[in-house]
Amino acid sequence: MGTVTSASALLRERGAASWAAAVSHPMVAEIGAGSLPHETFRYYFEQNVLYLEDYARAIALIIGRAPDLAAVTVLTRFLGQIVDTELPANYAFLARLGGPAQASSARPDPAAVMAPATYAYTRHLLDTAGRHDLPAGLAAVLPCQWSYGELAAGLAASLPADPVYADWIGMFAGDGYDELVQASTSLLDQHADVADEALMTSLAAVFDRSTRYELAFWDMAYVGPGGQTG
Amino acid sequence: MGTVTSASALLRERGAASWAAAVSHPMVAEIGAGSLPHETFRYYFEQNVLYLEDYARAIALIIGRAPDLAAVTVLTRFLGQIVDTELPANYAFLARLGGPAQASSARPDPAAVMAPATYAYTRHLLDTAGRHDLPAGLAAVLPCQWSYGELAAGLAASLPADPVYADWIGMFAGDGYDELVQASTSLLDQHADVADEALMTSLAAVFDRSTRYELAFWDMAYVGPGGQTG
Amino acid sequence: MGTVTSASALLRERGAASWAAAVSHPMVAEIGAGSLPHETFRYYFEQNVLYLEDYARAIALIIGRAPDLAAVTVLTRFLGQIVDTELPANYAFLARLGGPAQASSARPDPAAVMAPATYAYTRHLLDTAGRHDLPAGLAAVLPCQWSYGELAAGLAASLPADPVYADWIGMFAGDGYDELVQASTSLLDQHADVADEALMTSLAAVFDRSTRYELAFWDMAYVGPGGQTG
Amino acid sequence: MGTVTSASALLRERGAASWAAAVSHPMVAEIGAGSLPHETFRYYFEQNVLYLEDYARAIALIIGRAPDLAAVTVLTRFLGQIVDTELPANYAFLARLGGPAQASSARPDPAAVMAPATYAYTRHLLDTAGRHDLPAGLAAVLPCQWSYGELAAGLAASLPADPVYADWIGMFAGDGYDELVQASTSLLDQHADVADEALMTSLAAVFDRSTRYELAFWDMAYVGPGGQTG
Repeated sequence: MGTVTSASALLRERGAASWAAAVSHPMVAEIGAGSLPHETFRYYFEQNVLYLEDYARAIALIIGRAPDLAAVTVLTRFLGQIVDTELPANYAFLARLGGPAQASSARPDPAAVMAPATYAYTRHLLDTAGRHDLPAGLAAVLPCQWSYGELAAGLAASLPADPVYADWIGMFAGDGYDELVQASTSLLDQHADVADEALMTSLAAVFDRSTRYELAFWDMAYVGPGGQTG
Repeated sequence: MGTVTSASALLRERGAASWAAAVSHPMVAEIGAGSLPHETFRYYFEQNVLYLEDYARAIALIIGRAPDLAAVTVLTRFLGQIVDTELPANYAFLARLGGPAQASSARPDPAAVMAPATYAYTRHLLDTAGRHDLPAGLAAVLPCQWSYGELAAGLAASLPADPVYADWIGMFAGDGYDELVQASTSLLDQHADVADEALMTSLAAVFDRSTRYELAFWDMAYVGPGGQTG
Repeated sequence: MGTVTSASALLRERGAASWAAAVSHPMVAEIGAGSLPHETFRYYFEQNVLYLEDYARAIALIIGRAPDLAAVTVLTRFLGQIVDTELPANYAFLARLGGPAQASSARPDPAAVMAPATYAYTRHLLDTAGRHDLPAGLAAVLPCQWSYGELAAGLAASLPADPVYADWIGMFAGDGYDELVQASTSLLDQHADVADEALMTSLAAVFDRSTRYELAFWDMAYVGPGGQTG
Repeated sequence: MGTVTSASALLRERGAASWAAAVSHPMVAEIGAGSLPHETFRYYFEQNVLYLEDYARAIALIIGRAPDLAAVTVLTRFLGQIVDTELPANYAFLARLGGPAQASSARPDPAAVMAPATYAYTRHLLDTAGRHDLPAGLAAVLPCQWSYGELAAGLAASLPADPVYADWIGMFAGDGYDELVQASTSLLDQHADVADEALMTSLAAVFDRSTRYELAFWDMAYVGPGGQTG
């Protein structure tokens, strides 16, 4: 491990198995091939808009305990990306696939419509962000942001013909998105001493937990609403 | 539903299906019959001491936002029951079954040894207690406390010969335990207006979520460590 | 009180005495006249950049518990206004007055340089936002945002010649700022039932507490660093 | 500083000036001499029961984030001491001095009857316990517990004739109370590395802040209700 010089690189390395499974999930491959049924993708968005709303809350909770203004500023930009860009884009995809174009003001209790995987993942994010400090909070929210950038980069080399899938890949494959990931990983690297082995063990557990929840989220979405139990 | 006059009774009624499945779980029946393998019960305690430690934290978070001194007082007694009575008793059972008699000071990260069901259940408790108000927090922690009293009452009529199982049943079957449950349900009833339908819908979702996590916890423990994935 | 039809209007009305004292503070009058010593204004900014950083954290904590996406969205815009506009502007004013142009990366512990009034005000904001729900959190952060819009509107009719004071007034006197205040008060009005007298009593106490802390902040800044004790 | 080997001893040493002022406050001296007017002591209790209720909540919030079972256990005992012993004792003193014997179920909003010093002190405790980790939380709550043990030890050598004052001193002067202080300081010493200078600087600021709030609380109580402003 002598070549790993940053906390974020170390977390990626220690969680490599789960990470590889998440970014090469069969549903990701079918998105890249343009062969995924639209109704499966629609179910993904139905769950993802609920997920992103709590993801935004988790980022906000990290801001509430961020130790300095530089951290507050980077995380506010991250929060704005989710609330002002990704959530509207996800609702726009949902509308293209026949779903609602925005959050219903008379929506049912989100917990009632969240799949178990969505609920468990978001509780993990909210509790970690709410009760732990900045490095743990960042380790929890990073796998989602980071793995999407990486899987989209892989798919962007050969875009599918279906514009729904091509547009979705394009959302995460640009330089602007890479800069956001870079800002988040740099913030973690600045606040987490890679030489502190106890800290790295703890953060690696949080990071890999989130990556495995990413995997569970893809599993849930791929099976679709009919496949949910619990 | 005209006969339901308290919030706690209403939550029980609306979550009746999950509740029935939890209190009559095959593992509960095998405990009552004294036929459960000791190693299965030991695994239950290994997970339950981790669960109870976070259960205590969740009760503490509710205290941190309790609206008056009466609520602070009832919940402090509840917390003391978990920390001063149930956790030591669970470690004592663990020791009788060949496990450690106390929390290791050099223990591995709890998240690393928690089964997925234990982790998901405790995140639900901690997040609900930490971000929501007293009624929601109580609705989250009640199913555990309440269902144990009820299932133990059922098993106490005919105790198994194996003292490990008989002693465990006895821990939850006495009048003292019933008074604790009564204090918690009364506190909920006092702070949650049963006529507020939007509130009841929201609390019923929290309560039933916890009951289903109770069920998942029994499933996890019954299958044992070899059966865990994720 | 028959004419008051919104929660925000009611809170303003019930806290009218403190409000009037805050927006007509002698220091505000001297800013309007352009007669305030620059060193006094500089001390105001030295305290205000510390205040705004915690103000941002308090808004983020409200987002962490906001009940729906509409509230998350309005509050994220509010947070962005503080972090991306007001904090840089405050540092720019500080630099014009001979102070540092940005937060020092090697700054001393903020608590060590916060005046007692700044510390007490920000603890009130952070605790209210962190342990109470959206209406209470909004009632806490509103007086700062709202009173600045109102006092600036009063001063804008006759701008002082000193560009430091004129520019500062201009920051809060435009239509864009009014829209932000409007969005915040509307959010409160939507989530706080003005007919719920117990709620209004509680929110009015929070709102007036913040207004009195605004007043204490002006007092602290007007007296300057030499006048601080405790 | 070569002789300081624990974090708690270091915090005491660095905050020596505020500490000396708190434990030798004129009101403390008058309690020891039995010369304090009963109505002044009554006002102290009126404020202190409100203080202790939030002090209990702050301890609970620290439990909610305590890193291991040993810490949860020590803090639960601390919480029980406040809720089951000190609060009832404070209400009993209040009743002996002509006040109410228990918290009113129809009490006014505590924030409305808290003196500014009581409100500011408790917000400091609640925010520190809620947003920071165990060492900072302990550093915030320790000065109250610890300084009472120390000032009572000083007064116990020569008890005043007035039983109200003698009984109050006795509450904090026994070995049982010393053991509680010992448990809290040991917990801090175990979790805060005295050799970590950045941590010690940060904790010393929190600890001294609480000590100065102790002093402000004595000032507030000594002047009495007629002397409050703000």
